[in-house]
Amino acid sequence: MRLIFAFVPTPTHMAFDFLSAQAAIEKAILQLELGEKPVELYEPIHYIMSLGGKRMRPMLVLLGKYAVSGSWQETVPAAIVVEMFHNFTLLHDDVMDKAPLRRGKPTVHVKWNENIALLSGDAMLVKTYEHLMNHVPATILPALLRRFCQTAIQVCEGQQMDMNFEQLKRVSMEEYLAMIRLKTAVLLGFSLEMGALLGGASSHTIDKLYEFGIQLGIGFQLKDDMLDVYGEPDKFGKQVGGDIIANKKTYLLIRALEKANAMQTRELDYWLSVESFDPQTKIDAVKEIYDQLHVQQDAENIMNQYFERGFTTLAEAGLAPERYETLYCFARSIIEREK
Amino acid sequence: MRLIFAFVPTPTHMAFDFLSAQAAIEKAILQLELGEKPVELYEPIHYIMSLGGKRMRPMLVLLGKYAVSGSWQETVPAAIVVEMFHNFTLLHDDVMDKAPLRRGKPTVHVKWNENIALLSGDAMLVKTYEHLMNHVPATILPALLRRFCQTAIQVCEGQQMDMNFEQLKRVSMEEYLAMIRLKTAVLLGFSLEMGALLGGASSHTIDKLYEFGIQLGIGFQLKDDMLDVYGEPDKFGKQVGGDIIANKKTYLLIRALEKANAMQTRELDYWLSVESFDPQTKIDAVKEIYDQLHVQQDAENIMNQYFERGFTTLAEAGLAPERYETLYCFARSIIEREK
Repeated sequence: MRLIFAFVPTPTHMAFDFLSAQAAIEKAILQLELGEKPVELYEPIHYIMSLGGKRMRPMLVLLGKYAVSGSWQETVPAAIVVEMFHNFTLLHDDVMDKAPLRRGKPTVHVKWNENIALLSGDAMLVKTYEHLMNHVPATILPALLRRFCQTAIQVCEGQQMDMNFEQLKRVSMEEYLAMIRLKTAVLLGFSLEMGALLGGASSHTIDKLYEFGIQLGIGFQLKDDMLDVYGEPDKFGKQVGGDIIANKKTYLLIRALEKANAMQTRELDYWLSVESFDPQTKIDAVKEIYDQLHVQQDAENIMNQYFERGFTTLAEAGLAPERYETLYCFARSIIEREK
Repeated sequence: MRLIFAFVPTPTHMAFDFLSAQAAIEKAILQLELGEKPVELYEPIHYIMSLGGKRMRPMLVLLGKYAVSGSWQETVPAAIVVEMFHNFTLLHDDVMDKAPLRRGKPTVHVKWNENIALLSGDAMLVKTYEHLMNHVPATILPALLRRFCQTAIQVCEGQQMDMNFEQLKRVSMEEYLAMIRLKTAVLLGFSLEMGALLGGASSHTIDKLYEFGIQLGIGFQLKDDMLDVYGEPDKFGKQVGGDIIANKKTYLLIRALEKANAMQTRELDYWLSVESFDPQTKIDAVKEIYDQLHVQQDAENIMNQYFERGFTTLAEAGLAPERYETLYCFARSIIEREK
C-alpha cells in the first residue's frame, strides 16, 4: 500500500511547472496540422509559428486555467489559439511596417513576397478560428468565440491607430495609452480570461484576471518601447532604433515632447519631418535628447506603476495564495527577463 | 367573415419573391453596424459592401432556406455573412492583383492605401465571424462554423493556386478546373448549404444543393473568363482584357494552347513572355488567336455542360416541384443576365 501512495502527488503540491507547460506548448505548435497544398499558403504559417518567442500568450491561457481549476494539461491545444492569432497579426503587421526582420529572421514578405504574406495571413486567421472550434467545449464555445472576435477587432483597431499616429505630428499620452491597450494589452487580458473561462471561474475572477492581463500588457509595451532604443541588438532580434527611424509615436517620444524646451522641441521636430537622413545619425540625435530629458527613467517608473497595479488587481481575483504566487512569479520572470 | 379570409394568402402561392428578397438583402447590408473608430478601418468595409454586385451568394442562402422550408425572411441577417466574406476576398484579392477598379469604382487600396486595405480586410473577416455568430441559432452554430472555416480555407487555397498559375508557362485544364472550384465555386455551394442547414434539411438534400452550387459556380467562372475578353466595358466594370495582360491562365488561354498549331503556340508564348508591350496590341493579338481557334465556342459549350449537370443535381435534391422551379429560374436569370 505504501508504494501506491508514493506515486500519488498530494493536491497541495500540484504546483504549476513552467518548464513542462512551455514544452507542452512548443510540442503542440510543432504538431499543428494546418494543410499541405498549395505549399506557398502553408509554409509561411509554419515558418512564423516556428520562429519562437516567449509564447507568453498561450502560457497565460494555461495560467488562467490553472489559477481557477488547479490543472492546465488538457488546455494546451486550446491555448495555441492565442499564439496563432498573435503570429497572424505579426505576419500582417510586418507587411504594413515593411519590417525586414522578425526575431532575427527574414519576415514572411521578405522570404516569400507580399502577396503570399497577405494570403497566408488570411488563411492563418481562418485556421485560428478552426482551431478554436476544434478544441473548446461546445458549452463554452459561443461565449468564448464572441470574446475572441471582440478582442481580434480591438487588436485591428489598435494597429490602425498606430498607423494613423505615424502620420501625425503630435499624439497625446492618453491617445498613446489607448492605442497600446488595444494593440497589445487586450490579447494578454483575453488569454487569461480564456483560461479562466475554460476553468469555469466566476465572472468576478474572470474580470480581475482580464484586467491583470491588461495592466501587464501595457507595462510590457512600455518595456518594448524602451528595448527598441536601449535593447541589445542580438537579444532583441529587430532593428535597433527602428521606432525612431519610422517616427513611431512611442512613450519615449511623446514624453520627450512633453518635457522638451524650445530648442529640443525644434530638434525633435526637425528629425520627425526630415525626409532624407542617415539612419544612425537620426537615432543618435533623438536618443541624445531622450537622455537629456531622462525619459527612459520616466518610462521605467510608469511601467512599474502598471505592473504594481496589475498585481493589486490579481490579488483581488480571489485565488488560492499559492496560485496567486504562481501567476505573480510568471509575470515577474517576464518583467525581469529582458532588463 | 369574407373580408378576413381575403387577407390570408393561400400557402401554395407563397412563392419566392426575388425582388423582395433582393431588397431585404440590400437593406440588411445598409444597416450593418460594424464600428466607427478609427474611421480608416471601417469606412473601407462599408465602401466595398456598398459597391453593389448581384448579391448572388446571400440570395443562394435564402433560396437554400426557402427550398427546404418554404420561408426565407428570418434568414436575411445570417445570409449577409457570405456577402461579407466574398467582399473581404475581393478587397484582399484586388491588393494582390493590383487591380485599379472594382465594379467600375476605385479599389480600396487605390482610394485609401495598401496598408488600410490589408488591415480593414482583416477586420472585415473577423466581423464576418462575429456576424455569423450573432445570427445563427446555437444548435446549428458549431456545424455551420466548421463548414464556413473549411470553405474559407478552400477559397484561400484557390486564390494561391491562381497566383501560382501566373508564374507558370503551362497549366493543365484539370488544374485550372480544380482552382476555380476552390476559388469561386465552393462559396456558392456553401451558400446553398448554409440556407439548407438553417432550414433543417436532410443531409441528402444539403449535399445535392451544395453540389448544384459547385456546378453553377464553375459555370459562372467560365462565363467570367469569357466576359473579361468579350464583355462590354461599361457593363463589366473591370479592365477589359485584364486577364490577357496579366497572363492569367483562363479557360480560353488553356484551351487555345491545347488547340494551337506550332505558329499559334509560338505567338501565344511570345505574348506570355514579353516584358514590355502595348496593352491593346497584346489584347488584340491574343484575341485574334482565340477567334481563329474558336475557343469562345468551346467555353460556351463546357459552361453549358456545367449548368446542365447542376440542374440534374438540383432535380435529385428531392425538393417540391415549385421550389425546384424557383431555384432553376434564379440560376437561369443569372446565366442569361450578362450574355
